[in-house]
Amino acid sequence: MKIPISPSDLQAARERITGTIHRTPILHSTAIDEMVGASVYFKCENFQKVGAFKARGALNTVLSLPQKVARNGVATHSSGNHGQAVAWAAAQRGIKAFVVMPENAPEVKKKAVAGYGAKIILCESTLEGRERALEKVCKETGAHFIHPYNDDRVIAGQASCAAEFYEDQNLDALLVPVGGGGLLSGSLLTTDYAEKETDVYGCEPEMADDAFRSLRAGKIIPQTNPQTIADGLRTSLGDRTFPIIHTLVKDIITCSESEIMSAMRIIYERLKIVIEPSCAVPLASLLNGSIPKQYDRIGIIITGGNVDLNKLPFS
Amino acid sequence: MKIPISPSDLQAARERITGTIHRTPILHSTAIDEMVGASVYFKCENFQKVGAFKARGALNTVLSLPQKVARNGVATHSSGNHGQAVAWAAAQRGIKAFVVMPENAPEVKKKAVAGYGAKIILCESTLEGRERALEKVCKETGAHFIHPYNDDRVIAGQASCAAEFYEDQNLDALLVPVGGGGLLSGSLLTTDYAEKETDVYGCEPEMADDAFRSLRAGKIIPQTNPQTIADGLRTSLGDRTFPIIHTLVKDIITCSESEIMSAMRIIYERLKIVIEPSCAVPLASLLNGSIPKQYDRIGIIITGGNVDLNKLPFS
Repeated sequence: MKIPISPSDLQAARERITGTIHRTPILHSTAIDEMVGASVYFKCENFQKVGAFKARGALNTVLSLPQKVARNGVATHSSGNHGQAVAWAAAQRGIKAFVVMPENAPEVKKKAVAGYGAKIILCESTLEGRERALEKVCKETGAHFIHPYNDDRVIAGQASCAAEFYEDQNLDALLVPVGGGGLLSGSLLTTDYAEKETDVYGCEPEMADDAFRSLRAGKIIPQTNPQTIADGLRTSLGDRTFPIIHTLVKDIITCSESEIMSAMRIIYERLKIVIEPSCAVPLASLLNGSIPKQYDRIGIIITGGNVDLNKLPFS
Repeated sequence: MKIPISPSDLQAARERITGTIHRTPILHSTAIDEMVGASVYFKCENFQKVGAFKARGALNTVLSLPQKVARNGVATHSSGNHGQAVAWAAAQRGIKAFVVMPENAPEVKKKAVAGYGAKIILCESTLEGRERALEKVCKETGAHFIHPYNDDRVIAGQASCAAEFYEDQNLDALLVPVGGGGLLSGSLLTTDYAEKETDVYGCEPEMADDAFRSLRAGKIIPQTNPQTIADGLRTSLGDRTFPIIHTLVKDIITCSESEIMSAMRIIYERLKIVIEPSCAVPLASLLNGSIPKQYDRIGIIITGGNVDLNKLPFS
């Protein structure tokens, strides 16, 4: 396949966002190394602006808009990190943001989006309701829609995370959670263009294994009604992310819900960081033996830390 | 008063432990700065070896023992971070450690101590029971007792934390939680010997305000039966720490239990780190208005992250 995102796209994205996003730290734990039998490095995007890697792709997209487009603002629908990221990124450029959120979204999420100065448009909590509300706001305001992952500019922004990771640490394998596949696609492009020998894996809950099934089928198999605790990974691959993943990924591996919760506890106890359940999926996939034992230095991207503290799965 | 710990003691301690302890990172949050109205920097000792600053003092003491003393091992009584720190420090030197713990100590704490190769001696859960068991083990084995805070070598080790902090960040005020006063004493000595203009405050729960009362009375007033959630701060000052604190501290300030829990949530949500309740006391004392509004750059030492995840005060 011909990949429509070039090395210079990645380079331009990185230059656009560096200095505004955080260069996030890499953490490491002797105890986790012993459990795994290899050195494991965690790139902590939970410490990123808005508490998630999503700040990268949203900012790259907002900063790359022509002035004529940007002046009408940007819009998205999201009850999660992407909504905050678009709101934050728009504020960095000083343009308007419109975020469509379901009526039943948690107050804390609405507050966070409003805190960046975005306008919230409440909608019915269905895919149809969200899309209708988004279309309406874009039509009325002229705002430019930014998709959470199925967008080359977003993918190019997410790619900067792996680039930083490789600069700070040599890795034999890189494990990336996969939901819509924006971060995984970007990580794969960074790895390929830098001619790294690193094997890149996508990690996914068994209960939302559309990427696993899509890879094996050779076509997108959408996720229907996923029930996983890893709420950031319930989405399906898109037509911009699937071809990149299909061409470049080493494999997609999965783990169970109890493995996710157990890995989440290990990360809280050993790394002392607050993470969303989605971030625990790569470590769970490593501890359940799905990854071949051949790697000495393994990198994991910790994708975000915006978890509801009232609903932590520890008891 | 004549302070019995010299600048060269602090320097020697730092040289002894550097390279074995972690140089912990400093975190910062725009959202917290806005709440406080100043720049607040958090020195993250929850990322320290054994998950707490206690690794510093224990390691300095273990490494400074003459070979004749060290060969019989070291001993302490602790159900908390100091027990783990002594066990870990002894393992670094390759000597034995004996840790007296109450029978009803949580399994996870016993496991952590045993994991470093220390021998655990269970005792009745009373001060008398602990002291009797400790005396017995020291007599039988010749092990050298390391007090959690009332020991100049321990204080000199804890002093290294503030030294690193000042190297990385200029501060107008430094806020340190105070239980037995080892970390506060060490921080005060570092500040004074480096001739910093920084005002150093001790921060304490209202429900365990022995340092607050001792400072005002000009003598040690022991804590009786404290009930605070900040379990690391229930201890009383000792005769090695009180004189240093009395001479050098700017003030001791206090906060309520609900202020501690609220600040703890802010740190989890905004800094995305796992901390013990004790660590939230300085931010709570800052947010309740007890600290004068005159400081632009405020440092807080996050003392440890060994919290029982099953008992987090979020609901």
